[in-house]
Amino acid sequence: MIKANFKKKILPLAVLSTVAFGSIVGTFNAEAKNEKKDNSAEIKNVIFLVGDGMGVSYTSAYRYLKDDPNTTEAEKTEFDKYLVGNQMTYPEDPEQNVTDSASAATAMSAGIKTYNAAIAVDNDGSEVKTVLEAAKENGKATGLVATSEITHATPASFGAHDETRKNMNGIADDYFDELVNGEHKIDVMLGGGLSNFERPDRNLANEFQKDGYSYVTNKQELLDNKNEKVLGLFAPGGMDKMIDRNEETPSLEEMTKSAIQRLNKDKDGFFLMVEGSQVDWAGHDNDIVAAMSEMQDFEMAYKAAIEFAKKDKHTLVVATADHSTGGYSIGANGIYNWFGAPIKAAKRTPDFMAAEIAKGANVEETLRKYIDFESQDLPSLTVEEIQSVKDAAAGKERDIDNAIEKIFDTRSNTGWTTGGHTGEDVPVYAFGPGKERFYGQIDNTDNAKHIFDILANGKRK
Amino acid sequence: MIKANFKKKILPLAVLSTVAFGSIVGTFNAEAKNEKKDNSAEIKNVIFLVGDGMGVSYTSAYRYLKDDPNTTEAEKTEFDKYLVGNQMTYPEDPEQNVTDSASAATAMSAGIKTYNAAIAVDNDGSEVKTVLEAAKENGKATGLVATSEITHATPASFGAHDETRKNMNGIADDYFDELVNGEHKIDVMLGGGLSNFERPDRNLANEFQKDGYSYVTNKQELLDNKNEKVLGLFAPGGMDKMIDRNEETPSLEEMTKSAIQRLNKDKDGFFLMVEGSQVDWAGHDNDIVAAMSEMQDFEMAYKAAIEFAKKDKHTLVVATADHSTGGYSIGANGIYNWFGAPIKAAKRTPDFMAAEIAKGANVEETLRKYIDFESQDLPSLTVEEIQSVKDAAAGKERDIDNAIEKIFDTRSNTGWTTGGHTGEDVPVYAFGPGKERFYGQIDNTDNAKHIFDILANGKRK
Repeated sequence: MIKANFKKKILPLAVLSTVAFGSIVGTFNAEAKNEKKDNSAEIKNVIFLVGDGMGVSYTSAYRYLKDDPNTTEAEKTEFDKYLVGNQMTYPEDPEQNVTDSASAATAMSAGIKTYNAAIAVDNDGSEVKTVLEAAKENGKATGLVATSEITHATPASFGAHDETRKNMNGIADDYFDELVNGEHKIDVMLGGGLSNFERPDRNLANEFQKDGYSYVTNKQELLDNKNEKVLGLFAPGGMDKMIDRNEETPSLEEMTKSAIQRLNKDKDGFFLMVEGSQVDWAGHDNDIVAAMSEMQDFEMAYKAAIEFAKKDKHTLVVATADHSTGGYSIGANGIYNWFGAPIKAAKRTPDFMAAEIAKGANVEETLRKYIDFESQDLPSLTVEEIQSVKDAAAGKERDIDNAIEKIFDTRSNTGWTTGGHTGEDVPVYAFGPGKERFYGQIDNTDNAKHIFDILANGKRK
Repeated sequence: MIKANFKKKILPLAVLSTVAFGSIVGTFNAEAKNEKKDNSAEIKNVIFLVGDGMGVSYTSAYRYLKDDPNTTEAEKTEFDKYLVGNQMTYPEDPEQNVTDSASAATAMSAGIKTYNAAIAVDNDGSEVKTVLEAAKENGKATGLVATSEITHATPASFGAHDETRKNMNGIADDYFDELVNGEHKIDVMLGGGLSNFERPDRNLANEFQKDGYSYVTNKQELLDNKNEKVLGLFAPGGMDKMIDRNEETPSLEEMTKSAIQRLNKDKDGFFLMVEGSQVDWAGHDNDIVAAMSEMQDFEMAYKAAIEFAKKDKHTLVVATADHSTGGYSIGANGIYNWFGAPIKAAKRTPDFMAAEIAKGANVEETLRKYIDFESQDLPSLTVEEIQSVKDAAAGKERDIDNAIEKIFDTRSNTGWTTGGHTGEDVPVYAFGPGKERFYGQIDNTDNAKHIFDILANGKRK
């Protein structure tokens, strides 16, 4: 975390080239070719959305969670409407073959495989150009939106360069210090991570404001402000999960809409990266309630992007995940059922409830306050369920959290194999001109390769 | 299992109609439209392959298992080359919302959602027409190939009708007794399940031979025989898994090629269903060695189908899974690695080794005979690993099996959450004219709907 110790090359943004524009072998060339006559709309804008940790178990479960029980068919989610294939997520790391978010995001932002923890640097530590930087070079407006710290691995890999994702202060510095054509490279930054910008050693919020950026720290300020350049930081670290949020905190959808409104003022078009950051965090915690909360937050942001693209007609929207998390399964322990209703009964995450209990709140009152099984026509909290949390309350907050999560796992038949990531392919969704480039089985690096090519040529093919 | 107790309607094959030809709302209509000019080849033949239990964790892991360590990129599998999307697998069962193989296969064969255990019957027990039957009505040759009993849930749902998958004798009877236009409806049946055909109460092998079918029971007989109508039964129940097979047992690839050669003699074309049956069985057993063995067996059969279709140019090949099994994850217990090498070190499945040990074979000798970690540059079997199996050897064969499986799980970092099925979407692969119908997010019933439509119209669109 100490900047002085941090080996970093002072290197302009010009490493990429052959990597990014190398041969793109597409299984779906035939389709792409045939699309030409249909719509050769110029691609002005690219919105790239990442559901961090959003593997196929999550996208499938979210559909069933939302399912209308009054119909026989499962209603498709917004994602389902535009599925185009799956992508491989493996990193190129000397020690690990299941990716982390930094390596995966670098693959998607810069088109190269690298080691876990790398923020837009290659395996030899060289900085690699990102699609956000290429967009800015082309005169486009650019934005990053996330519910994690805006300096967290995924957004960082689009807007900074660092040998380790842990250096979030240095990443915030990059956002200010690394210029493209003499200008700051990111016009809109919305998310958490205030503590990485307002620091004893440096106040980047002030520095950005001196350079014409607005600085907003709550929902109302965000909505009232119309500046094309904005830094919005809504929590010291990560933002609260959707169902835990207060009224001062914007949703991912609100941040996404606000970003699009600002960026769309640029006649040269824009590049925007939006991350539903905390599907992954919920997965690490093996918390199905939080995971589904964050899926909904992300779906609404994705829908906002699609709706903009439908009207605009010159916007490509791509959504995908960087990896899956938790080894989450729909069904567990030999039972052929997975139930969304118990999860919908939660008004807050287990984390939120555990924190209250750890602070001294009564276990049973807290559980009854925030878990309304009756609203879902389910049996009330049982004596055993309440007792399991009471037993845990003697231990650490983490134990309380785990005990509450177990209630939901058991009632929903949710299974987990790990507190880390898993290596299966993840879904890819695409809408708008150029979408056919993303069809079929792609690699995570293909995302950047296609976007670089689109930025270079401005055409769907 | 008692035929007399079995409520079954005597009903001709004419229930379907509106279901099968109902509206097919495709996200990918645009693509389909644009493909027209490219290739309007008539679709004469349809080969539909089901990797039972082959969820995205299996298809991804198999890629990494096969990966050439001398290249930096992961080589694509045969499946990867033709991925077109994912499908939903949920059943319409009053008690369960995670599907079994019978309900899923009925969805894919007949285009309807039904209850778990249903073999081409609706929720009210009515028989529903299958794509195999429709193909036979159209004068096409038809075939079923599987490594399970050929009367097991998946093939049965294409070639029989029964209120329960358990009635495998009744299903074998259907294969003979249910006629289409006065003829047997399945020309080629290759797989296991001899005991369901040669029974004290009835010898269907003899009956088929009287009606002009050849009857073969080992690999050489299969390869020597060229009859267009053939019943091939290579095991009393399920066939051995690929790495456990003897020389008398054909592979799924050999059965598939043999089926295609025979069926392709029909000038009206053919419908062939091929099942890689035992990916699922391995998943139920939480046996990653067996799972990868069966993935390879299935991939080779799929490749044979693709190679035929490439030459033929009038053959649509679709491959998918019915569901995933075991809650299998690539990586487990917080570790960011999954290793294929320990799995490749196995010369036989844990089941095979456990059976030998249960019969009295020496534990250490058996393990050393069939597990060659040294060949993969891995540490030899440890004292602890051998002891864990010795400890289990005092118990049931199942305990021995589990102990051996645990060695592979631990070395590969494989996770499992269930001995049953899971509900996430599964991949869909398609090649040849008409493939674009299967693009994007589809439902399992869409497979049958599209194939019915192709059979009715004979065209890609």
